[in-house]
Amino acid sequence: MKAWKILSLCLCLSLVLNVVIAVGPPTCPADVGSGCASDSDEWQGEFFPGIPKIKYEGPKSKNPLAYKWYNADEEILGKKMKDWMRFSVAFWHTFRGTGADPFGAPTKLWPWEDGTNSLAMAKRRMRANFEFLEKLGLDRWCFHDRDIAPDGKTIEETNANLDEVVALAKELQGTKIRPLWGTAQLFLHPRFMHGAATSSELGVYAYSAAQVKKAIEVTHYLGGENYVFWGGREGYQTLVNTDMERELNHLARFLEAAVAYKKKIGFNGTFLIEPKPQEPTKHQYDWDAATSANFLRKYGLIDEFKLNIECNHATLSGHSCHHELETARINGLLGNIDANSGDPQTGWDTDQFLMDIQEATLVMLSVIRNGGLAPGGFNFDAKLRRESTDVEDLFIGHIAGMDTLARGLRNAAKLIEDGSLDEIIRKRYQSFDTELGAQIEAGKADFELLEKKAKEWGEPKVPSAKQELAEMILQAAL
Amino acid sequence: MKAWKILSLCLCLSLVLNVVIAVGPPTCPADVGSGCASDSDEWQGEFFPGIPKIKYEGPKSKNPLAYKWYNADEEILGKKMKDWMRFSVAFWHTFRGTGADPFGAPTKLWPWEDGTNSLAMAKRRMRANFEFLEKLGLDRWCFHDRDIAPDGKTIEETNANLDEVVALAKELQGTKIRPLWGTAQLFLHPRFMHGAATSSELGVYAYSAAQVKKAIEVTHYLGGENYVFWGGREGYQTLVNTDMERELNHLARFLEAAVAYKKKIGFNGTFLIEPKPQEPTKHQYDWDAATSANFLRKYGLIDEFKLNIECNHATLSGHSCHHELETARINGLLGNIDANSGDPQTGWDTDQFLMDIQEATLVMLSVIRNGGLAPGGFNFDAKLRRESTDVEDLFIGHIAGMDTLARGLRNAAKLIEDGSLDEIIRKRYQSFDTELGAQIEAGKADFELLEKKAKEWGEPKVPSAKQELAEMILQAAL
Amino acid sequence: MKAWKILSLCLCLSLVLNVVIAVGPPTCPADVGSGCASDSDEWQGEFFPGIPKIKYEGPKSKNPLAYKWYNADEEILGKKMKDWMRFSVAFWHTFRGTGADPFGAPTKLWPWEDGTNSLAMAKRRMRANFEFLEKLGLDRWCFHDRDIAPDGKTIEETNANLDEVVALAKELQGTKIRPLWGTAQLFLHPRFMHGAATSSELGVYAYSAAQVKKAIEVTHYLGGENYVFWGGREGYQTLVNTDMERELNHLARFLEAAVAYKKKIGFNGTFLIEPKPQEPTKHQYDWDAATSANFLRKYGLIDEFKLNIECNHATLSGHSCHHELETARINGLLGNIDANSGDPQTGWDTDQFLMDIQEATLVMLSVIRNGGLAPGGFNFDAKLRRESTDVEDLFIGHIAGMDTLARGLRNAAKLIEDGSLDEIIRKRYQSFDTELGAQIEAGKADFELLEKKAKEWGEPKVPSAKQELAEMILQAAL
Amino acid sequence: MKAWKILSLCLCLSLVLNVVIAVGPPTCPADVGSGCASDSDEWQGEFFPGIPKIKYEGPKSKNPLAYKWYNADEEILGKKMKDWMRFSVAFWHTFRGTGADPFGAPTKLWPWEDGTNSLAMAKRRMRANFEFLEKLGLDRWCFHDRDIAPDGKTIEETNANLDEVVALAKELQGTKIRPLWGTAQLFLHPRFMHGAATSSELGVYAYSAAQVKKAIEVTHYLGGENYVFWGGREGYQTLVNTDMERELNHLARFLEAAVAYKKKIGFNGTFLIEPKPQEPTKHQYDWDAATSANFLRKYGLIDEFKLNIECNHATLSGHSCHHELETARINGLLGNIDANSGDPQTGWDTDQFLMDIQEATLVMLSVIRNGGLAPGGFNFDAKLRRESTDVEDLFIGHIAGMDTLARGLRNAAKLIEDGSLDEIIRKRYQSFDTELGAQIEAGKADFELLEKKAKEWGEPKVPSAKQELAEMILQAAL
Repeated sequence: MKAWKILSLCLCLSLVLNVVIAVGPPTCPADVGSGCASDSDEWQGEFFPGIPKIKYEGPKSKNPLAYKWYNADEEILGKKMKDWMRFSVAFWHTFRGTGADPFGAPTKLWPWEDGTNSLAMAKRRMRANFEFLEKLGLDRWCFHDRDIAPDGKTIEETNANLDEVVALAKELQGTKIRPLWGTAQLFLHPRFMHGAATSSELGVYAYSAAQVKKAIEVTHYLGGENYVFWGGREGYQTLVNTDMERELNHLARFLEAAVAYKKKIGFNGTFLIEPKPQEPTKHQYDWDAATSANFLRKYGLIDEFKLNIECNHATLSGHSCHHELETARINGLLGNIDANSGDPQTGWDTDQFLMDIQEATLVMLSVIRNGGLAPGGFNFDAKLRRESTDVEDLFIGHIAGMDTLARGLRNAAKLIEDGSLDEIIRKRYQSFDTELGAQIEAGKADFELLEKKAKEWGEPKVPSAKQELAEMILQAAL
Repeated sequence: MKAWKILSLCLCLSLVLNVVIAVGPPTCPADVGSGCASDSDEWQGEFFPGIPKIKYEGPKSKNPLAYKWYNADEEILGKKMKDWMRFSVAFWHTFRGTGADPFGAPTKLWPWEDGTNSLAMAKRRMRANFEFLEKLGLDRWCFHDRDIAPDGKTIEETNANLDEVVALAKELQGTKIRPLWGTAQLFLHPRFMHGAATSSELGVYAYSAAQVKKAIEVTHYLGGENYVFWGGREGYQTLVNTDMERELNHLARFLEAAVAYKKKIGFNGTFLIEPKPQEPTKHQYDWDAATSANFLRKYGLIDEFKLNIECNHATLSGHSCHHELETARINGLLGNIDANSGDPQTGWDTDQFLMDIQEATLVMLSVIRNGGLAPGGFNFDAKLRRESTDVEDLFIGHIAGMDTLARGLRNAAKLIEDGSLDEIIRKRYQSFDTELGAQIEAGKADFELLEKKAKEWGEPKVPSAKQELAEMILQAAL
Repeated sequence: MKAWKILSLCLCLSLVLNVVIAVGPPTCPADVGSGCASDSDEWQGEFFPGIPKIKYEGPKSKNPLAYKWYNADEEILGKKMKDWMRFSVAFWHTFRGTGADPFGAPTKLWPWEDGTNSLAMAKRRMRANFEFLEKLGLDRWCFHDRDIAPDGKTIEETNANLDEVVALAKELQGTKIRPLWGTAQLFLHPRFMHGAATSSELGVYAYSAAQVKKAIEVTHYLGGENYVFWGGREGYQTLVNTDMERELNHLARFLEAAVAYKKKIGFNGTFLIEPKPQEPTKHQYDWDAATSANFLRKYGLIDEFKLNIECNHATLSGHSCHHELETARINGLLGNIDANSGDPQTGWDTDQFLMDIQEATLVMLSVIRNGGLAPGGFNFDAKLRRESTDVEDLFIGHIAGMDTLARGLRNAAKLIEDGSLDEIIRKRYQSFDTELGAQIEAGKADFELLEKKAKEWGEPKVPSAKQELAEMILQAAL
Repeated sequence: MKAWKILSLCLCLSLVLNVVIAVGPPTCPADVGSGCASDSDEWQGEFFPGIPKIKYEGPKSKNPLAYKWYNADEEILGKKMKDWMRFSVAFWHTFRGTGADPFGAPTKLWPWEDGTNSLAMAKRRMRANFEFLEKLGLDRWCFHDRDIAPDGKTIEETNANLDEVVALAKELQGTKIRPLWGTAQLFLHPRFMHGAATSSELGVYAYSAAQVKKAIEVTHYLGGENYVFWGGREGYQTLVNTDMERELNHLARFLEAAVAYKKKIGFNGTFLIEPKPQEPTKHQYDWDAATSANFLRKYGLIDEFKLNIECNHATLSGHSCHHELETARINGLLGNIDANSGDPQTGWDTDQFLMDIQEATLVMLSVIRNGGLAPGGFNFDAKLRRESTDVEDLFIGHIAGMDTLARGLRNAAKLIEDGSLDEIIRKRYQSFDTELGAQIEAGKADFELLEKKAKEWGEPKVPSAKQELAEMILQAAL
């Protein structure tokens, strides 16, 4: 049979889309209740009943629910694929993404959702998360504190809710599964509208400290390997009403306090900053890798943090993803990758699953040069398109994303084993592999010496950069 | 006293921001109820108790709640300012804007809101709208059908809700106030996720027809002067799953049917298409003025529609606002302006109040060249920043927006009266104000004739374009 | 052997880069003379002595000077690859590109160049062009009039120069080779600084007419299959000193006269307009496919022109290349493709060889849907990077570009034969493959009928768009 | 008289534009000779015979050749305008700009040019420069080494040429005029195609060292107050063939050597790095202020350099000019400003004269907060549009640019004296002007303390950011 099997698991579709949506700009079902899920009881049976455990079937398979390139235990360049990739599911996009956008109401009401954010619902979702991980064959997940458990009326109540869900997560994790990282969600609630650590309000700064403190504790308790800071609202809408210097000072004090607290409680996970140039703010302080590195250096925090590079954030900041990875790497800061992609013609974060094979190959070249990412990994900070509303789409997106990076790894290995591309680079710089080159690189060649040489040598010869040849070789590996 | 008076009308602030927000990506208060407003009763007294009727105080005034440049009855170039401007309040942004963004929950809960979208609440909002118009001294408003009245469970019920609110609006309009335009909101509800007239589902096409039919009727009933089509979801997310040609054919059939219906019921208002390049979709079919004009010409609709140009949409499509206005104008299509502005460094629609004096001056030059906009006008499709949460901010934004355009009108009049800028343009083209020029412009100069002349004349003389001088003259009028 | 053979044909490198360059912003060797080439005599022997005729060796070949995917006579979907592709070399970039950029002097001084633009040099270059075509195995070339022959002091002298070079080209073409298209270069000389057909100077308008007249004659004489209008300076730098309406009227008159002249002399080639949004001007009138179509429709020229879509111009205008091709196609205007690519992170025209396999696959899907491009084809409007200075790089760039599109064709054929992607699209729109659907598409379903149906049916069901599945299927073909 | 006087100084226009231009992409008149200027003799008389010394005539003047806002000796905020502004003419754009662009040949051949770059011509240009400064009433100029004197065949010859012209400049400077800064032009010549300090060729590294050494000496000799590094080609075209880490190391070694040499010869001027994101390279290492600061910190150079912020470079990197200035300022790095502007809709460097009053006001707010720029200043790194070909246009551009910034200074002073805008900012952050605020800012508030406070306080109150009010106040000062 030539055609792909087009699945139709739309279990709950008519309910999903017949739901009466309260009108209003970005809004949500206020009184749904009538979803597929029963509100009060524990969920019975499987969350994804029609979906098998995803297996590797090789590149010729046309089964959308199989891996064609990701073969977890296969060795590539001396390491198992799963150890190169260290894939993680983002709880946020997968289980709390609603399909809402600035002009549209939610489109996704998964069968297990009951239209509330009750504690019971939070726990049900957590069970769905672990079934999802199990079916994909993955050992890692990432979470924001506020996705996994509902807000209470006070910090104490909120923390208690969180503890209850986290206890369940701990149980469900068993011995094999751990968070790749946890983080605090400091951007959704209106209290954060001016920022969290950079809010103009001291009360918000304090509240944020309390929240981050708890989120670190919880990540530590679950055995998380990293902890992420994404400062979605740490920035400004206009400089006209902003004291940028004071805000940045506050941010530094906040991160110092976080480092102190981490050490105090013995959390050994890596602290990661996730750069993003803008959206929701007009300017976010962690604009890109270099900007974040400057901040960390200025405030003496450079040894306490690494970076979580997101491909979509990279392109929004005017760089290729590969550029941001390399910038992080050569600053000694490449800690984790948020594996996604933007649309090259849109100016906002689309968080699509990365499906570009060449991009994935370049990403994996950086990862290999970095000796892998551990204790970091690849987190799928990617969401289904708003119009993808079948449960199976959640699997298809993740499978395609994993396969693309796995294919990138295979291609990168091919390039490295072939050696031609490395050879082009080696040859380009070979004039520095000389005695004078070594002197220069050791900082021992002063201007007088160099001038003397330049006068002796006359006009330097400058060979072709062979860019088209390099691209041809790269492409041949795809 | 030197300083501006910084108002503090934050009547309801503690309630607004203490509200417990249900967690979830763009979400809203589900069970607020405890707002400043009582749920069941009619609202008593003023909506904006501390705000006076806004008056013209002239450029030296430092009162934020006064006009400094907009003096409604003052004549400029032979016409009253109010007749040049024909300002309109957008019900949508002003009364249904919540401050939610893709990463944040609503921040605005105005004192008159009760956290619901009940019919009673809809009517209360409508009263607030008319008090707002009255205090600003404006005669025009714009609305989407679904902003002003709640969805029902069926089309019939939804229409009945709409009728009830519209009857109140009619009453409140009195003899002076009318809608600048009405429109149907065909993008928020999940049913429109693949488009409305361009949806892949025939059922949605039919539903959209029913909704637009009603929206035209209602606009007609209220005495609306125009009717707008903004196809927020008429576009695609990816061409890979899209039949663009078929979708565009459907759109044309839909608009033809709208024209036929308009004529049938005797609605004489202008039909306007509002171009926008993207967001929410990756590509919107009405990308810009020229693209919309091509569509209208291709399908023989060019005489039935004009364009509603939005400045923020213009810049998102890679053009200046002035360019889009001029393109519309010289295609005979300039019908209305959505007066707002984007941020030059962001790639999404920010819908800020237009505050740039030079931009406003260029906009007004186009309007004057167009002989005004009537029956169109300026609609404030602009919203407060998410962080602007005082009731008075609604007034400040509108006053600043009106004053900026009024200042633009005064500057444009100065330029026209001075005449130097027009003179630069006249001189640039004077070689065509000749016999051969007239022949060329009449299509009577063939290549043989032109070649003969070119050979006779030898190398043409090409004078300076004097761009810096033109800009200096423009700037002197600001 | 694992590594690619890295060629070193840098025949003339030391001369190239030792040359004394006159200082000044974009400048050129004023008094070179001492190049590898002798100034006065006919060139002896081969231009590309070390380069063999390029042959197809299949995907496993690591020979940079062989085709891996382009196999001219192989049939794909019932047509030979060469008939799908109709590749053409752009004389401009290949033989007149110097490597200069806004901040840098020329870097390329090919061995056959003597540093002049004499008639003898022009003829020598033409011979190089035909050897290049022959070694690549191609039958088509494209040219600007002013690239192939030097300016004289008068139009008569310039035309005589052109005739002399064209006579040689005619001879070298033999029976097999023809121009894919010719065009007039109306942007380099200062006389065109305000435009050609849209210049504010009538003398320039006339001069341009004379030049285009001659360029059409010459293209006709050489058996050219198309003639292109790229209006690089038909646009504005600022609207402040521009009468856009008058300029557009002039452009229309100019094109009408060109059509009349074409008919008069019996030239049957297709007239093509090549859209570009900007650069060198701030705004170019032929912004994109839709804008060009609007212009053609407005002035009644829609049946006389098709479009030449360039991928790099597409992305500069905010569209994907695939979008522009589809827009041209469904407007009945897809005539030719300038096969190149921009850098997704730069805001100017980089004219790189297209090396992206997915993009090439989408391009070829459009071409197949269009039933091919004949009498148009693919012109390599692509140039070596400034730093690629070996003669062999000219071959490597073209081979890589051809192979990428050939690979795209193979992938597109795979997708079509598999059928799954088409099936997703067919299914999406199947609700319109009904009686009511047919009525709608025939323009016979009015709003009353549609409203009746919508009320009968209740809430429409809206299935998933399956974007991730579609992308997975597309990717599997790459 | 109402109209502006439109000058017509086109002294030499027919000659300029009748000149036969050698065809070729960015090219130049090879054998002009027949210009207005005689090749061999010293220039006689004035260069700008019709242009008077430019005087301040106040805002009501309509004389294009007068200052309306810049009144050099008037005091603003306790300092003379000329001491705030410290304006400088860029020799490069003003005297070596030809009007060439990537698609067009030079358009400007000033009357004093003879079509060569001889030593005699270089000296004549230098005289023109000083007459220009004198007529504008300015005391500062900036230069690249290679603009002011021609290349020789060897470094020694080139240096001798430079010395000869510099001796003349020294004489013409007299006691009052000095360079604001000098710099080495390391991007035009093909030898720099892979970079200068970051070239893959050691020979180019050495050559660059020799050139920079000489440029520093010359700047020192002329009494220059600063020395600038703009690394136009220090970057990459593709990462695929680039060792970014090694290149950055080389750049650091190079700058270290420059610092050592500066100290050795006793040059006390400030070293400035000028960030630019891209163009000509796809990625330039000094992308923006934060990226440059990170580099300087990483390599221990942060105390040896400041930044030269260019407004057009700022917007190309995705930031407002104001943002880049503030980023530089709060990193202690604001040293100089290249006063120009880009077009908000183009993706390349247009280097227009800054004419936006609001932007100028924000720029001056940063300058005032910085306590001025000395020993830096404002350099007009701005060029006439290609189509502005009258000699008087050179004056008009500079006058408009100076007046715009002078108007910005007046507006900024008004804002500061009014105090309302500062008051908004002060109030926003007042919750930190408390005991706990002080503790936080001193790094003495740990997470336990903050959590305790947050629990005590309950939900924080978050007031409006008053952005629209702030913008209204800003606009009122314009």
